[in-house]
Parts: sequence; structure tokens; C-alpha cells
Amino acid sequence: MLDYFLKTRAWTKQLIEPLQTEDCVLQPVQEVSPPKWHMAHTSWFFEEFVLKPFVKDYKVFSEDYAYLFNSYYNHVGQRNPRDNRGSISRPSTKVIRQYRQHVTEAVSLFWKQLQEHKDWPEISRRLEIGINHEQQHQELLLTDIKYILGTQPFYPLYVEEGAPDCDWSAEKALEWNRVEEGMYLIGHEGNDFCFDNEKGAHDVFLESFEIADRAVRNDEYLEFIEAGAYQDFQWWLAEGWDWVLANQMDSPLYWVKKEDQWFRYSLSGLIPLEPFGPLMHVNYYEADAFARWKGARLPTEFEWEAAFQINPDWMYSPVWEWTASAYLPYPGFKTEPGALGEYNGKFMVNQMVLRGGSLATPEGHWRPSYRNFFHPHLQWQFSGIRLVR
Amino acid sequence: MLDYFLKTRAWTKQLIEPLQTEDCVLQPVQEVSPPKWHMAHTSWFFEEFVLKPFVKDYKVFSEDYAYLFNSYYNHVGQRNPRDNRGSISRPSTKVIRQYRQHVTEAVSLFWKQLQEHKDWPEISRRLEIGINHEQQHQELLLTDIKYILGTQPFYPLYVEEGAPDCDWSAEKALEWNRVEEGMYLIGHEGNDFCFDNEKGAHDVFLESFEIADRAVRNDEYLEFIEAGAYQDFQWWLAEGWDWVLANQMDSPLYWVKKEDQWFRYSLSGLIPLEPFGPLMHVNYYEADAFARWKGARLPTEFEWEAAFQINPDWMYSPVWEWTASAYLPYPGFKTEPGALGEYNGKFMVNQMVLRGGSLATPEGHWRPSYRNFFHPHLQWQFSGIRLVR
Amino acid sequence: MLDYFLKTRAWTKQLIEPLQTEDCVLQPVQEVSPPKWHMAHTSWFFEEFVLKPFVKDYKVFSEDYAYLFNSYYNHVGQRNPRDNRGSISRPSTKVIRQYRQHVTEAVSLFWKQLQEHKDWPEISRRLEIGINHEQQHQELLLTDIKYILGTQPFYPLYVEEGAPDCDWSAEKALEWNRVEEGMYLIGHEGNDFCFDNEKGAHDVFLESFEIADRAVRNDEYLEFIEAGAYQDFQWWLAEGWDWVLANQMDSPLYWVKKEDQWFRYSLSGLIPLEPFGPLMHVNYYEADAFARWKGARLPTEFEWEAAFQINPDWMYSPVWEWTASAYLPYPGFKTEPGALGEYNGKFMVNQMVLRGGSLATPEGHWRPSYRNFFHPHLQWQFSGIRLVR
Amino acid sequence: MLDYFLKTRAWTKQLIEPLQTEDCVLQPVQEVSPPKWHMAHTSWFFEEFVLKPFVKDYKVFSEDYAYLFNSYYNHVGQRNPRDNRGSISRPSTKVIRQYRQHVTEAVSLFWKQLQEHKDWPEISRRLEIGINHEQQHQELLLTDIKYILGTQPFYPLYVEEGAPDCDWSAEKALEWNRVEEGMYLIGHEGNDFCFDNEKGAHDVFLESFEIADRAVRNDEYLEFIEAGAYQDFQWWLAEGWDWVLANQMDSPLYWVKKEDQWFRYSLSGLIPLEPFGPLMHVNYYEADAFARWKGARLPTEFEWEAAFQINPDWMYSPVWEWTASAYLPYPGFKTEPGALGEYNGKFMVNQMVLRGGSLATPEGHWRPSYRNFFHPHLQWQFSGIRLVR
Repeated sequence: MLDYFLKTRAWTKQLIEPLQTEDCVLQPVQEVSPPKWHMAHTSWFFEEFVLKPFVKDYKVFSEDYAYLFNSYYNHVGQRNPRDNRGSISRPSTKVIRQYRQHVTEAVSLFWKQLQEHKDWPEISRRLEIGINHEQQHQELLLTDIKYILGTQPFYPLYVEEGAPDCDWSAEKALEWNRVEEGMYLIGHEGNDFCFDNEKGAHDVFLESFEIADRAVRNDEYLEFIEAGAYQDFQWWLAEGWDWVLANQMDSPLYWVKKEDQWFRYSLSGLIPLEPFGPLMHVNYYEADAFARWKGARLPTEFEWEAAFQINPDWMYSPVWEWTASAYLPYPGFKTEPGALGEYNGKFMVNQMVLRGGSLATPEGHWRPSYRNFFHPHLQWQFSGIRLVR
Repeated sequence: MLDYFLKTRAWTKQLIEPLQTEDCVLQPVQEVSPPKWHMAHTSWFFEEFVLKPFVKDYKVFSEDYAYLFNSYYNHVGQRNPRDNRGSISRPSTKVIRQYRQHVTEAVSLFWKQLQEHKDWPEISRRLEIGINHEQQHQELLLTDIKYILGTQPFYPLYVEEGAPDCDWSAEKALEWNRVEEGMYLIGHEGNDFCFDNEKGAHDVFLESFEIADRAVRNDEYLEFIEAGAYQDFQWWLAEGWDWVLANQMDSPLYWVKKEDQWFRYSLSGLIPLEPFGPLMHVNYYEADAFARWKGARLPTEFEWEAAFQINPDWMYSPVWEWTASAYLPYPGFKTEPGALGEYNGKFMVNQMVLRGGSLATPEGHWRPSYRNFFHPHLQWQFSGIRLVR
Repeated sequence: MLDYFLKTRAWTKQLIEPLQTEDCVLQPVQEVSPPKWHMAHTSWFFEEFVLKPFVKDYKVFSEDYAYLFNSYYNHVGQRNPRDNRGSISRPSTKVIRQYRQHVTEAVSLFWKQLQEHKDWPEISRRLEIGINHEQQHQELLLTDIKYILGTQPFYPLYVEEGAPDCDWSAEKALEWNRVEEGMYLIGHEGNDFCFDNEKGAHDVFLESFEIADRAVRNDEYLEFIEAGAYQDFQWWLAEGWDWVLANQMDSPLYWVKKEDQWFRYSLSGLIPLEPFGPLMHVNYYEADAFARWKGARLPTEFEWEAAFQINPDWMYSPVWEWTASAYLPYPGFKTEPGALGEYNGKFMVNQMVLRGGSLATPEGHWRPSYRNFFHPHLQWQFSGIRLVR
Repeated sequence: MLDYFLKTRAWTKQLIEPLQTEDCVLQPVQEVSPPKWHMAHTSWFFEEFVLKPFVKDYKVFSEDYAYLFNSYYNHVGQRNPRDNRGSISRPSTKVIRQYRQHVTEAVSLFWKQLQEHKDWPEISRRLEIGINHEQQHQELLLTDIKYILGTQPFYPLYVEEGAPDCDWSAEKALEWNRVEEGMYLIGHEGNDFCFDNEKGAHDVFLESFEIADRAVRNDEYLEFIEAGAYQDFQWWLAEGWDWVLANQMDSPLYWVKKEDQWFRYSLSGLIPLEPFGPLMHVNYYEADAFARWKGARLPTEFEWEAAFQINPDWMYSPVWEWTASAYLPYPGFKTEPGALGEYNGKFMVNQMVLRGGSLATPEGHWRPSYRNFFHPHLQWQFSGIRLVR
């Protein structure tokens, strides 16, 4: 696990590499955090939940950081408000790099001592959560970097080449796969790591359905746009239509029309829209409206997971897929006591579940039982559409 | 059915009776409509969906009313924005009474002609929807009147005596009833009237659970308050806690503490809180927090309906009961084409289901499959809590 | 003075006469108060400042009214927030009529007793303020009624005939009159009634200027519109231009273009724009932009008053005239102690002075030294433009 | 003048020196611009108004910068919205330093060519405006840097030693100086540089008054606080009192009370409040309330300038001084055509004039006729109080 820890810590560093210092400080909208905040917060997590409680006489890198880099743990105390993260210039990115190194080294240095601690089972559980937590933030780092750069007037790029959200060439006709009526066991089983919200595997009865064998593509969504769907209330949920009108929407996030040609912002800058590329950066309202327009619908999260059980190959995709399921507790869901109990449970209202994973999901972080969740109006994730009928 | 129609129309009139003209015009918050708007809107509904399309040469009472009294039907055309209903003084209440009478008489007068119309099946279906629609607004009328009067500084009353939300005396100890694991058929069956969102009866597999045999009472909720629960984040969903802080909440809507004694506003004015009265006017955040504090939880809407199937007596209650289910389509849910297809389906996001009915629900409007739904922050309905464990 | 008091009270009643009860309750925007609030507030003023302190054993009509009908006097205590006036249905209009009568009769009844009171000089001063205060509200009543009716979708009218804001026929070419450089005595002199903000007559040195002999007309302003001035930033103050863009303005309040013809809402309903009618319902931004476009400017309040001293005939006009002067204290301005000291002084920031009077100003309320004041974005007064160069 | 230009350019560089890159990007509130924006905007000004129009074949450093670094000149075209300046990470600070150098060198390089240009009078006038413009932004740089650092939770400092807003030791009793009634010539005369809003020297008649011979000190303002003035409506303008309540104010910006001792944030960090230091960072509401509480008042801008004419020594002070004058045009004020005409005139509404200069005013930028202006609620300038009576 120490290896896995070190590899995870190193990957964060690599993700930050192409950025300029100025990019690391910005918070253009509330849901996007400054990269340097992610760098510090993922380090604070190990300090707060492992080093401080379990390493004897551990001295924190700075007394100020619990206030600055706690995200939402009320149990841990007062904190800088979420929408104020973009008003903090100090500590500088350089100091935060030192902080990261300090924490990484401390975990390595005390590894032996931790392993011999009487609470090692709890410690190792927390280390595992910490690693998975950092992986989640690696994904957020990419989406937030894309937003920070991609909403600037002149579209600066993250990397010249090899951006993870580019290069879509293979054409693949869509096929429908049938899943039979029956009882399916939903949720995580076994002793591998998973978050608390996946636990409590339970039977769910499903009627039969057909599911597309890949996510919706740009060219398919373009038809929706060109059919005037953003100007026609009948396809939209009432709140979705309000969102369209209030924001004068006419396409997904990062799509730009110039002289009758469509472009999209990618991590390698503004590029012509690739017809066969996977649709990305739609919100739930758009996903739901598109499905309705197509005469289809979105899968529930149970259907999604059942389909995966039938044939995993159908379900891999470069985008998180909006499901028709609201984010709610599984039967018997329990939060653990203390701060880590705030990890997932307290967000179970007004959000929709996304399943799968995306091109931004770090290696080893993908699970078929994984329940991602966002508010229905948010587009900045690598989020797309899977159809069922 | 004509009788039922006339009875329904008469009941609306009776509900309005105790009001003063000034009460009929106000819209203190967006979700509360002026009583005179309800009076007109329920009449416009019959005019728009029955009289205009099916009565030959029918002349509408006023060409302006489609604009003024359409609620949310995009298919019908432009309309007065919802939050502008409280800025409309004309037509006066008197003219709206004439409008009501005009519509009631037109339906009666043309009843025979409609019955002999080749589309009578569709017409009668629409009349039935219109009657049920008016019943829904009768319930809203009471909740809106309560809000209009109950949020004024000096608490004017609706009726001196016989208010439907008063007189709770019987004490009943709470008992837990067991519902066994199994497959339950959920949704409406048969040919009786129901809304489209209840249709598509389908099997749902449930694990066993225990359900309280009555709704939570004021004295039980008072313990929650006195335990400091409104000051302790640990019981609340994150959005619920934000709501508590932003609105400085410390008790349900209409509860008032004066010199260490609790009162509540009822339709008969401010009265001392009755310990054995049913808790009313909590929102989903409060219901969820209370259940967590009690070491219990809210039922899903499927559990609620299953319990009713076991024993209806357990489930009658003077309040709508928040469930742990988000408002989503049943499998195979279809909206009909045209304006009436906008009735329910387009609201299926970001709302929670309530089950049962309340003291404000008109006679004949109660159904075990009925799916009421509101946003989680709203308290102004007669909404309470049922516990399961 | 008793006569004058009774006449004033009667005139308020007459202004209310044409309204329906529903019209009396509405507050469509913060600056517009419900007519029934004006009716009550002007009565409370006499009760609070004359009857309560000076009539022995006087019993107020209702203990609740100080809370409900105090406008902004912090010295008097807590009050209903200004933007909540439109959420109060009780007391009803009928009860408020009784309240008005009660107060009118009490003042009459105790007149003798008050006259013999040792503080009669102070009492009579307050009665005079109360009468002038009610006259101010008579003007506001008309502007507020116009807003309440004129912003409804179907333009209900106040009176069929004889509306004070109609019937403009006389054409009069504009002439410029010269006022010579010199020292002018500005402010109110003598013992007649005036408000505290007019006191402290003082010398002001003015350079010579020319002033138009009448207010700007509709046809003149129409040229400004048709020249595209609402689409051209160069004529506008920065805040004015922000206001144009944010509200998508293209004409004064109440102007409506239908099939290429201009109409305006008047108290007798929607009527074709009269070219020779006086321009009404522009705000300071519009007045300032129009003057700039004309190659002229607005007068300072000192220039306005000086012009009146030269020749009063030039300066009468059916509209309040925006001046280029901010509302600030005259040299030596003092507020009196207590609540009545809050009457004018505390508003002396961020407002502009208007001079003259309007068609809505009650008889006897006009004074050349009168300083009216509003925020620069407000259009709902009978406010127009006088040019100087 | 080339020398003066180079010195001015160098001074901006020196002001930026102590900052970290992260500090240069932030815009915590709308009125505070990122330091790197100031660096670029002041360079763009020379490029736009001198190099582009007058240097043959001049190639701009980047075509994007007119959009990014235009502040408010509508004549120049579309621009990045003011409140979006803090969402721009690119060009980086490093590139902007190169931009600054490029512009500085271009002006130097083409100096001779410009001098021999037939439009040299216009060019030199623009260079002078550009230098004064940059000096204004040098002052804003300091106030913005102070805000960016001083509102962070742990008060990072700008410089360890020699901060311009520190070290106040000399105690000086306040004396009142009399200015006699009479006519005073107000505004700028002569051929020295001044802004357009100072031009049009004109006679103003003033009554006699007494003016304090120094600005208000911290200890004097502390008495106001300790007398409960922030809790007592009677001292405040109505909008000021609203501001106090809405923001729960109890002291000037940057004042912090810890365990019964007062501190203030300075550019050298949080330091104990110096009793004899000049009061800084109050807004107009606070200045006006303090003067009222003291039984005094603020000077008009005319009184301020007249006092300076009597004895300049009275009027030097380390803070801008709020006057009782609204920012309005002088008689005969004219804006020049084109973009530079937008410099001052379009802001002449809803702002108050401040006179003098502050510790942040660059050498050579101080003038007795200088008219600074801000909205009455803003505190972030080095703004204080001068009393008259």
C-alpha cells in the first residue's frame, strides 16, 4: 500500500506539472476549486485523519491549514468558506509543494510505526480512504483545470499533445443489448475498497430493457441541436427549460460555433468538433432532454449496474453517464461516527447519480458499483449520456 | 359526474367564504398563489380543456384570462409569470366569482351536448381531470390561505371555530408494525381515476421493515428542538444545514415561542401548542434530521404503499408524509401529447415524494397510490413525518 | 387650519374613490406602497405626533398600527419592513376607512382642547407638518396607483374621464430665457410652512445661463428615441448605460409600441402618445442623456430657483423637473431632535433633487423652494426635463 | 518628459516587487483589480492612445490585450467584464512584465519620431495623461494589494519594514482655523496638467467656517466606537444605517478586536492600533456619522479648496478626505470627443468627492484642485475625515 500511496501522490504532482502558477490560484465559479487548494487539501486529509491522531508527537506543517484546507468536515471545526477559496494567495504554490512533500515523507517515515500501532486496521482503512480521496481530487483537478482555462476568452491550453480528452476517431454503430427481467444484486460486495454509499448489496427487481452498447456521440447530439431542441420546451424538464432560458443555452459546455462550424474546447485548446467523439460536458437536464427527443430514456443506476453484470464490455466509456436515479441511501445505509461519516451521506438530496467513470478517472479508481453524484445543472464534469429503451 | 362536478365547484366557493377581499389578492412568496388566482385558474382549466375545444361556438368569458390564469402549460401559450400573480388586482374578486359561475353554468348547460359528442370518452376523462385538478387547488387554497394570514404580524384568523387544523386531544402511544420482505405491486391499478404519475403498476422488491402506526406528534418533535438539534450539524443533510443557518431556523413553520411557552399559528389563530397534536409544516430536511436523531429513518414511497396494503388503518393521518423517495417516473411512464402531458412529468427532478393525504385533502381525493411532491425546503404544506426502522 | 386639515383629509378619500378594494392592497415593487397603507400611514402620523402626546387619555385606535404603519421613524420603534407592506391584508380597507374617520374626528373633537394647550405652538406646527405630509402622500397615491394599474398586462384604468395626466393639446414653441450672472438668495424665507431641508436661505453665486420656458415634450423625446439614443452609450452616464442594458430599456416608463405606433399608459388607460404632451416618467439617467444629446444640460437646483425669481411664469409645469444637483444639506442645515428630525435629513446621499411640482401635487402644496428628491434610476414619478444652456 | 515617463514606469515595477505571483492574480471583490491587470492596463493605455495611432507601422504586443486590458472605454470596443478580471490566469505575470518592458522600450525608442510628428502637441498631451493615469493606478495598486492580503484569514504582509501606512507617533492637538466668508475661485488654473473634471475655474461664494488643522485620529474615532455609535441609528444617514445592519459593521475596514485590544491590518501585517495614527479606511457613511456625533460636519469640496488657498499647511494629510460634495460637473464642463472623453465625466452620479491625497499618492501627483471620487459605501481607499464647524 505504501507504493500505491506514493504512486498516487506522484500522479497529482504530474497533473499539476503543465500549469503556470497563475492557473493554480483561480476559482472562477463555486464548484471549481483552485488547483493549489486541491494539492493542499489532499495532503491535509492524510495529516488530519492519519498523522495527527496516530503518529506520536506529530507536529503539523502549519496550524493554519486546518482552517484553510478543510473542505466540508464540520466535525473538524471552522473553515474557510467554499466560495472564498479563490481569494487566498498564501501559502504560495511553492509552499504547498513543500507541504505535499512534507506529508508524503511523513507517511513514509512513520509507515513502520503506523504498521505496528495497535490501531493499524483503522489506520490502514484511513490510508486507503485517503488514497481514494486523492484520486477523486485528481479527477476534479482535471475538470477544474479545464474549466479555469476553457472559460478564458482566448482558450489557453493545458498540454500541446496527448490531452486525455482528445483523439476520437473510431466509428462504431450503436447496438442495443437486452437485459432480462429479474432480480439483481446491486451494490458492492467483498472486501475490496469502496465508499460507504456503495455498501449494503441488496436485491433489486428490474423489468427487462435494452441498453445502448456505447455512449452518445457528438454527431448524434448535433442532430438534437440542429433540430432546434434548445428552442423547444417540449423536450425539457420544467427546471431544465428554466435553465436553458435563464442561461440562453444552445449547446453543451465548451462548444463554440464560429462561422457555421462547431468547435469545442479541449485540454489541447479549441479544436473542430469530432463527429465520432463521445459527447461530454452535458448536464442532467440535457441528458434527459436528449433521451426524450430520441424516444429513449436514461438508465436507472440499477439498470446500469445490472447491464455491467451481464457484459462489462458494453459499459466502459470515456464519460460518466447520467442515470435516472436520484442520489439516495441504499437500504441499511449507515454513516460512521465522526468526521469521515460526513464523506458521502450528507449529500443525499437534490443530486443525480452518475455511473461508470471517465477519461479523467485515475487508474485503479474505477468500480462498477461506484456512485458518483452531481447537481442536475452542472456540466463541468466529463459527463455524457447512455440510452436505454 | 355532473353532481360531483357541481359539488366540487361549490366546495371551492365555501372555502373562500370566510375570507375578506384583501386576503384574496396576496402572494407573499412565490409558492403561495392569491386565492383569487386559484378561483380563476380552476375555472380556466375547464374552459381551456373542455368548453373551448368541445362546445360548438363557445365564447370564452374573457380573452385575457388564458394569459392571466394559465399556470405552467407551455402548449397553451404565453402567460403571466408565476411570481407576478400577486401584482394583479383586476379582474376583481367579484368578477372572478362571476367567471366561476359562468363556467359552472356552461358545463351544466352543455352537459347533454357534451355527452352526445363523439369524443365523450375524452371529454369525460378531461372533466374528471378537471375535477381532480380543482380538488388539488382546494388543498392549496387552504395551505396558501394559512400562509397569507399566518405570516402577518398580528395573526388574523380564518375561522373562529371548526378550523380543520385544530382540536387534537386523543393520546395514542406509538407502536411499530412489521412488513415482511417480498415483492409488492406498486402503483395504481384498475379504472378509477388517477394521475399519470401513478400509472404503470409494477413489482418492487422490499426488505422487511417496521413502520410506526401513526405520524410524529408535536411533543415528540419538541424533544428534538429541546435537545438542541437545530444547533447541531450532525443530524442534518448538508443542504438542510445550510437552510437552517441561512434562515436561522429553530422550529417548524408557524411555531412561535413567547415567554418560554410554545404556540403555533392555526387557521383559528395563534394557540398554545398541543402536545398530542400531529406535527405539521416541516420540510424534508427537518423530517430527515428528526428521523436520524430518533435512530430511525423515513419510509420510501414503496414501503409506505406496501404498509398500506398490509393494513390501511396504520396509514391514515392528518398530514402528508415525507418519504425518502425522490420524485421520478415509474417504469414505462409516458406523458400524453399536448398540454395535459405537462401536468406531472416535467416536474420529475429535485423534488421528494409525499404520501397519504392531509386534513386539507378534499373528500374523495385520497388514494393509496397518490404521489404528492414538493421541493425539500418547503414547509407550507400540511406535511409531517412517519418513521420506519 | 382645521378647515385645511378637513379638506386635506377629504381629498385623500376622494383620490381613493375610483379604486376597487383589490387595487388597494398591492405593492408591485418596493417603492410603490399599497393605497391602503398610505390611507393608514397618514392617519397614524396625526395619531403618533399630535393625538397621543397632546390629547389627555387619548386611546389609540389600535395598538398594532404603530408597527404596521410607521414608515421609517426609528425613534418610534420597530416596524413592518418596507418591502413587506404588500403582504398585509388586515386590517381591511374598510377598517382603515374607519381608522381614518376616527382620526379625523378625534382631531376635530379635540381641536379646542389642543388650541388651549400650553404647547399649542408646537402642536400647530405638527398639525401643519401632518397636513403637508398627507399632501405628499396624496401625490404618491397617484403615482403608486398609476404604477399598480399601469404595469398590469391589460392596463385597467383609474378613471374613464378627467384623468389628471391626460389632455395635452396646446402647442407651444420653445423659447430660451436668459438669467444673468449674480448672487441669488436660495432657500425658503418667511414664516410660511416649509420643510426643514428648504430652510437656511443663503447666497449662491451663479454664472449667467439660458433656460427653456417649458418642459420637454413627447415629440422632442421621440426624436431622441428614434435617433437610436437608447442603443448608443455615448449619451449616457456609466450607471445610466448599465441601467439601459440591464433592463433592456428603449423608452420611458409606460410607453408601449404597437405595430409601429407609440402609446402610453395614462390614468385613463392606454392612449396614443400625444406629441405635444409633456414628457413624463423619465429617470435622471434619461433626463441627463437627453440633455446631452440636445447639446444642452439640466439646471442646477439653484439655477432653477433663480429662474423662478426672475419670472415665475417660465417655471410652472405639469412635471417635476430633474435638476443637476445632488440632494445635500444647505449651509447650516439642522435636524430637529426626535422622530420628526428623521423626516428629510437622513436621506441626503445618492439622490438627485427635483424642482417645481407636478399635475399630482395637491393644491397649496407647491413652493418655489420645494426640494423633492429621488434616486436617479426611478421613473415612476411624474418627472420630466427642463433644459438649460 | 521621457524621464518622468521612465520614472513612473519604474515605480510601478517597484510597487509590485514584494508580491508573490499568486498575489497578482486575485480579485476578491469587484472594485479590487488583480495587480497583474493594473500592470497590463497601464501599458495598454500607452499602446492604445499613443503608439497605435502615432507610431508608423507599430505592431501591438498582442491582439488579445485590447479585449483583456481595456477598463471601461466603450469607444475602444468590447472588453472583458470588470468582475471577470480575477478569472484570467493568462497571460502570466511573467509575460505581462515583458509586455510592460515592450511598451516602455517602444515609447523610448520612438520618442524622437513622436516629437517630430506634426501632432506632437496632442501626443505629448496624451503621454502626460498616460503618466498621470499610471500614477492613479499606482495608488490603486497599493489599496488593492492591501485588500487582497488584508482580507485573508492569516494576514500575510506586503513588506516587513517601511510600509507607507505605518509609523505614526507624533501627537498633535487639534486646532480650528477660520476661513472668512467670501468669493473663492475653485478649480484648476494655469497650464500645468490636470484632469478635465478640475477645469473651468469658477467663483463660488462661501459663508465663513472653521476647519480642523489635521485629519481625525484613531483615538478620536475609537471614542465614537466605544460610545456605541455603530449601534445607534441616530448618527447615520438612512443608507448608512442600512449598510451597518446588513454588514454587521462595528469598526472601520481592517480593524480587528482581539481579547479587548484593537489591532489593525497594515501593509506590514496586523499591528496594535496606534492612538495617534490617522484614521484610515472609513467610508462616507462613517465619515458623515462621525462628524454628526462630534457636533461638526464634513467640508464641501469648495470649502476644502478655499482652506488650502488660505494656508496649504493645514491641508496636507496622509489620507484622502471625504467631502460633503457629490461628484458633479463644474460649470461649463465639457468632455472631449472619443475614448478619452470617457475618462471622468461619465461617472458623475452617486459618488462623493474626496480631496487632498494620501500616503499612497505618488510623488508629483498631488494637486489642491484634484477631485477624487468614490461611492459612499467603499472603505478600501486610504480615506479619512476632516472636520469643519
